[in-house]
Amino acid sequence: MKQLTEAILAQTIRVRPAESHKGTYGRVCLIGGNAQFGGAILMATEASVYSGAGLNTTLTDPSNFVSLHARLPEAMVADFTDQSALSALVTAANTVVIGPGLGTDATSLDILTKVFRLVSSKQTLIIDGSAITLVAKHDLALPSAQLVFTPHQMEWQRLTGIKIADQTDDANETARTQLMNGTVVLKSHQTKIYTPTGSYLNTTGTPAQATGGMGDTLAGMIAGFTAQFTNQTDAILAAVYAHSDIADLLAKRQYVVLPTQIIQQLPSYMYNHQHK
Amino acid sequence: MKQLTEAILAQTIRVRPAESHKGTYGRVCLIGGNAQFGGAILMATEASVYSGAGLNTTLTDPSNFVSLHARLPEAMVADFTDQSALSALVTAANTVVIGPGLGTDATSLDILTKVFRLVSSKQTLIIDGSAITLVAKHDLALPSAQLVFTPHQMEWQRLTGIKIADQTDDANETARTQLMNGTVVLKSHQTKIYTPTGSYLNTTGTPAQATGGMGDTLAGMIAGFTAQFTNQTDAILAAVYAHSDIADLLAKRQYVVLPTQIIQQLPSYMYNHQHK
Amino acid sequence: MKQLTEAILAQTIRVRPAESHKGTYGRVCLIGGNAQFGGAILMATEASVYSGAGLNTTLTDPSNFVSLHARLPEAMVADFTDQSALSALVTAANTVVIGPGLGTDATSLDILTKVFRLVSSKQTLIIDGSAITLVAKHDLALPSAQLVFTPHQMEWQRLTGIKIADQTDDANETARTQLMNGTVVLKSHQTKIYTPTGSYLNTTGTPAQATGGMGDTLAGMIAGFTAQFTNQTDAILAAVYAHSDIADLLAKRQYVVLPTQIIQQLPSYMYNHQHK
Amino acid sequence: MKQLTEAILAQTIRVRPAESHKGTYGRVCLIGGNAQFGGAILMATEASVYSGAGLNTTLTDPSNFVSLHARLPEAMVADFTDQSALSALVTAANTVVIGPGLGTDATSLDILTKVFRLVSSKQTLIIDGSAITLVAKHDLALPSAQLVFTPHQMEWQRLTGIKIADQTDDANETARTQLMNGTVVLKSHQTKIYTPTGSYLNTTGTPAQATGGMGDTLAGMIAGFTAQFTNQTDAILAAVYAHSDIADLLAKRQYVVLPTQIIQQLPSYMYNHQHK
Repeated sequence: MKQLTEAILAQTIRVRPAESHKGTYGRVCLIGGNAQFGGAILMATEASVYSGAGLNTTLTDPSNFVSLHARLPEAMVADFTDQSALSALVTAANTVVIGPGLGTDATSLDILTKVFRLVSSKQTLIIDGSAITLVAKHDLALPSAQLVFTPHQMEWQRLTGIKIADQTDDANETARTQLMNGTVVLKSHQTKIYTPTGSYLNTTGTPAQATGGMGDTLAGMIAGFTAQFTNQTDAILAAVYAHSDIADLLAKRQYVVLPTQIIQQLPSYMYNHQHK
Repeated sequence: MKQLTEAILAQTIRVRPAESHKGTYGRVCLIGGNAQFGGAILMATEASVYSGAGLNTTLTDPSNFVSLHARLPEAMVADFTDQSALSALVTAANTVVIGPGLGTDATSLDILTKVFRLVSSKQTLIIDGSAITLVAKHDLALPSAQLVFTPHQMEWQRLTGIKIADQTDDANETARTQLMNGTVVLKSHQTKIYTPTGSYLNTTGTPAQATGGMGDTLAGMIAGFTAQFTNQTDAILAAVYAHSDIADLLAKRQYVVLPTQIIQQLPSYMYNHQHK
Repeated sequence: MKQLTEAILAQTIRVRPAESHKGTYGRVCLIGGNAQFGGAILMATEASVYSGAGLNTTLTDPSNFVSLHARLPEAMVADFTDQSALSALVTAANTVVIGPGLGTDATSLDILTKVFRLVSSKQTLIIDGSAITLVAKHDLALPSAQLVFTPHQMEWQRLTGIKIADQTDDANETARTQLMNGTVVLKSHQTKIYTPTGSYLNTTGTPAQATGGMGDTLAGMIAGFTAQFTNQTDAILAAVYAHSDIADLLAKRQYVVLPTQIIQQLPSYMYNHQHK
Repeated sequence: MKQLTEAILAQTIRVRPAESHKGTYGRVCLIGGNAQFGGAILMATEASVYSGAGLNTTLTDPSNFVSLHARLPEAMVADFTDQSALSALVTAANTVVIGPGLGTDATSLDILTKVFRLVSSKQTLIIDGSAITLVAKHDLALPSAQLVFTPHQMEWQRLTGIKIADQTDDANETARTQLMNGTVVLKSHQTKIYTPTGSYLNTTGTPAQATGGMGDTLAGMIAGFTAQFTNQTDAILAAVYAHSDIADLLAKRQYVVLPTQIIQQLPSYMYNHQHK
């Protein structure tokens, strides 16, 4: 298992080409946020926008439209139960993230299965939070897309049956290959990333960031990075590293680091760590 | 009566252990906010989140969901009249705070009595604002939980029958033991805390903080501190001290200190005053 | 006509007494904000809260509750068509401000006439914006309260029949005494204040503040100042001076000064200019 | 084709006259924002307000009222399907901008055609985003007003039939004169402006600003500038230059520059670049 270092940032975050437009930086579609967990999809969306994804649309419960726009007019919105909007937006996206605050009821399951039918092999699909639980609970067949799972340890247990105490690198890597030819971001106080081309240990991170919404924010950053940067594995690794490294920087003066505080740092952090 | 000093902070605010996750820092359930007083539960929730509680859910009137998420996507929400949500969330919490902006009508009373039935002796229950008035008015039997009352002087009078002019330390301490084996935070320009292990005078505080919402903020901080720190009495004392000490710091350059301004300072203040 | 100077600030903004509570700093009731002009009552309310008024309730169209709380959880809200709430809240207030964004339709008129019936001679009533137009249009009899009118020049013309070109100090003062034994804040690029004890010219102010919402903000500041400070005339004068002086300070680095930017400065500005 | 330089700013942004009021700085009416694209009209409105336009009203889907006021109480709102409000507000405006987030359905088309009937030759009408697509799709006759089109290259192709690769200066200028006697702001990584008195190349701008909402923000700035400054062509040119120059300044420390971050800089930027 290799250790992630700061080098992943400059390797991934390209200097933006002068001749470009918002389409150059990708379309992201973020799906989640039921009436109770709306904050999760707000944080994921903000993370994608502040990472620099060119166009961002949030498919969520309509009760979340106003709070999202009050915080972030830069994102577009649609009702996640509107099949025609879902179909058009998912199909047009470079990266789709599903799960933050999605919930696990029949509506959530219906949306997830529709998304699985809509995505294709050229798209990156990030499966996070409630969506992981739904895949595990209903033993859903996975679609042919560039898959990224972002479970915490309990969600990984649900998905693979491997108990937390038994989640060794070998067991995890074996489970990943059995699950799919994609990437697993296994979140813990030291996050590990299992990819088709190798496994990585993230050495950044602080207990100051052990607070609700941190995972939603990471999912949104992975979305923003994969939408912009060509090498999808590098994009995932750079997002994981950056997310916790920003937390480390803030934790030099804060007892707790809130997800929205990490998001605010993204534009300057990415500026400082882009390709030289 | 002992004087609270800054020492309570370092004694209480532990350095966070490296191997931890959001569950390590407690689950807080905040209940209040009717249609008129929604701001109160927003401030209580923000105070708990910015104190570092790991997971925070606000049970409130649905008309407050959007304003809460527009300010604070980090918290989850549920309808305080949804019995099944109330039951699940209260039962799962380490700390429950009820009262900020709850109101005193039949709905408010119904929610309060349900919470009293749901909590158990291992949980901390903070009874604030309207909930104190309801207990007094309806002479409610108190549940078996680790109780914290946070009355201002008039609410204490309602609860105990002791007129403000007669609220001596002895009278207050006697009333506390008659009421319960818990803690009373008696708020005034010099807040006093009566606990099972002794009484304390808070010497921090400024008239600049004499403004609406200050008590709601304190209730939320006590929730955040008790959810994270083991010694519940110390957690309460540290929250009271910190709340007014931050106000003192801001009052060095502000004529009035708003509750939301205190909340913003919590992450850096707690960093500076954690255990050395 | 005397010129207002900075001396009015230290003369008015008392050092807060140590033994005090939120009630010491007054109850303000702000009434206005229909569906179209909701922003006006939001700015008035924020100005009152940031001035340091102890307790603030906004009576407005319910469609404004969420935007108000998203910005300012410190204020309470009620439906301005709820007669029982209106009656209880107006009666309990030290200062009532009516008019910002109230509109001029039948509902607006109904609310205004109810407020006129509710107020009493010990209360300060600030009549602003649409409420001035309603008084003029319907030739309403004025209630017995400590009245403050805050017209701009066109509203003053509507109220008194004096055309803008004819609004000389003598004509204005004569019109004031005919209208009532109260105060007129006649807003223009050089605001003049006609009071029962003399007339004043405000020398602060900048064209950078010539933007929508500035008057609503001033009305809220007058509310906050009169609720806290004993001498009502001084409170009005100090609010007018401070409002434009803060704008002058911001205009040293801004081409336009927005109302909400003035509001943010109030706590530090009042700290710097309180009684020495 | 002339190159735009910083000189356009001092030439356009006049020192505000001392004797002035909010009416001096123009009335702007901003029309757009359906349920899905509400953020677009929020950003346009914020840009107009922060540019210093005296009075701003946003005609939009009512679902956007709360998010707009939560961000910006300085603006007034009305339902864009309310014919009487539309008529009154458009008629009273100095500058009308239509299009940001308007959508392209039957309601959008109905609003656009009404606006085309309402405007007159003394008003500036900025046609942006969806409104350009509607004009192209339905081959709408243009009204007699001071017209400004703000297409990106694909929208310009829709409007004129000129493919992006064929959009030479000559072809664009010819198309402009065939379309109308107004101005075209053709947005790309190097925006060009075709006016009745000459063509201009904007040399400011950065790939950091290639993100959703940037065009909505520019439309709002053009609205704010044309409402305040006499020479309409100069106002457009100055807005285009300033919009990208602020982005350049922010891009010295940010990897991505968000539209709302540009807006925040307007008051100080305009202060620094006004007429000496």
